Amino acid sequence: METKQAISFCMNKINYVAIVGGTHGNEFTGVYLIKKFEQDLNLVKRPSFETLTLLGNPEAFKESRRYIDQDLNRSFFSQDLQNSTLTGYEQVRAKVIEKMLGPKGKSQVDVIIDLHSTTANMGLSILLGELHPFTLQLAAYLTSINPEIKVCYTQGQKSNLLRSLCDFGFAIEVGPVPQAVLSTELFQKTEELVYAVLDYLERSNQGIIENINSPLTVYRYASVIDFPRNEHGEIKAMIHPQLEFQDYQALHPGDPIFLTFDGKTIAFEGTSTVYPIFINEAAYYEKGIAMCLTEKQQLEVIPT
Amino acid sequence: METKQAISFCMNKINYVAIVGGTHGNEFTGVYLIKKFEQDLNLVKRPSFETLTLLGNPEAFKESRRYIDQDLNRSFFSQDLQNSTLTGYEQVRAKVIEKMLGPKGKSQVDVIIDLHSTTANMGLSILLGELHPFTLQLAAYLTSINPEIKVCYTQGQKSNLLRSLCDFGFAIEVGPVPQAVLSTELFQKTEELVYAVLDYLERSNQGIIENINSPLTVYRYASVIDFPRNEHGEIKAMIHPQLEFQDYQALHPGDPIFLTFDGKTIAFEGTSTVYPIFINEAAYYEKGIAMCLTEKQQLEVIPT
Repeated sequence: METKQAISFCMNKINYVAIVGGTHGNEFTGVYLIKKFEQDLNLVKRPSFETLTLLGNPEAFKESRRYIDQDLNRSFFSQDLQNSTLTGYEQVRAKVIEKMLGPKGKSQVDVIIDLHSTTANMGLSILLGELHPFTLQLAAYLTSINPEIKVCYTQGQKSNLLRSLCDFGFAIEVGPVPQAVLSTELFQKTEELVYAVLDYLERSNQGIIENINSPLTVYRYASVIDFPRNEHGEIKAMIHPQLEFQDYQALHPGDPIFLTFDGKTIAFEGTSTVYPIFINEAAYYEKGIAMCLTEKQQLEVIPT
Repeated sequence: METKQAISFCMNKINYVAIVGGTHGNEFTGVYLIKKFEQDLNLVKRPSFETLTLLGNPEAFKESRRYIDQDLNRSFFSQDLQNSTLTGYEQVRAKVIEKMLGPKGKSQVDVIIDLHSTTANMGLSILLGELHPFTLQLAAYLTSINPEIKVCYTQGQKSNLLRSLCDFGFAIEVGPVPQAVLSTELFQKTEELVYAVLDYLERSNQGIIENINSPLTVYRYASVIDFPRNEHGEIKAMIHPQLEFQDYQALHPGDPIFLTFDGKTIAFEGTSTVYPIFINEAAYYEKGIAMCLTEKQQLEVIPT
């Protein structure tokens, strides 16, 4: 396991926080949390900053689908936002959302919390983009109050995600829950987590955040693995029973990873231990992803 | 609990059995079992009868959706099958399927096994239509070899289900599994169950079926309950945490059934104990069904 040091930093005041749900129309946890917050904005108001709430993809929600024309949460590349020839529903919606929360790179919004759910057994996960001491401190705080929370990040990619509109955008990803189903337990846990984030941001503005000195475990996106497929692109194996629901557990070279329909085990051919996440996520079949592989790291989070 | 006696009967030879999967395009267990069987028909061939396999809704499967225009498994009313003005994808597909497996009421096919999955915690369930001593004996046999199997039935309804094309049609309904996800464990359990049915039918033809004398527990569909909704038709409460995943468990008058978004418990207002199934099934939100209520009965299954 790699150990890294995050640099120290000086954080400006947070003025605007956006909470987005239903960026994918069939992820109901976020949709119904946004509806709840919009019924009573006091729940998400804090004294020192403004909180905006947004239902990301209302048309897809009406149809209980992830998206209408294309994945909204892959529609935020800068060049696509500036391309007036892109007129699909989500392409236009991304531009509308950029108007509300952007512009990308120079956003008025300081923090975006994008609420997602997954069919994978991801528990309560925080998905960060580039590491920044501020979001790391926040993540370290959240894991300190709830050790079940896992923290993931992606490095060095130009991002087409909604949360890339601002520097401190992150996703709360909860599972397992089927698409188009509202899980009461995950609704409640996500709600609690959103309040914990807002309270932390409030204390940050007041200069009274707790310093976390213990190392933070993070999972860095390394690669993805597709299902074995035949010449027609059809899957010809399933997640191996030993790997089903084992998100965040170590997968060693040679461990069973898939099981063919006629019962043959396929072993993981990697050369080092990885930690799969998003195992068997419904929406990723069409993306050619059976799971994402991450590397587990320990980060020393520098007190502010 | 009500106790009933089934009448004895004399069963003709079974000549044709049809196994259908993917009647709903996003229920992958059945889809991939059909693909497996079609790769190696020996798996489902038995000496004394013909076995047909059919992918119910291939277009919906391509899009990982339950259906394209309407629910195929609600498209088999006799009058709809005879109505040439109905031209939606599933309306036409139902007529094609009736040509292959029907005609309804006078089907060449003796038994239809329709493979379904659900996001509800239904385990391994057998869904029968009208009770018939033959299917009851089969169900009693299946529960005798696997006590986890539950048996449900509907009485006195004109059926628009695919399996209503023949007298001995039934569904195997397995869950919980998200839509558009292949669960390896449920794939394997369903496959085993299909073979057990086929082997039973083979022995029935040979006149060597085992008589089951012990009473059979069955769950009779009584009614459905919708989520509480606001004036716009939007749900305003979730399944109560105490009821989530509690399919087939007793629900007594006064027990918690829903939880509003602001945390108020709604109690079950029924006057007798019921046994909910299909709790929080994704596809039923649009049908106005939060769960189906059943009555638990003991049936004396008469040996043949």
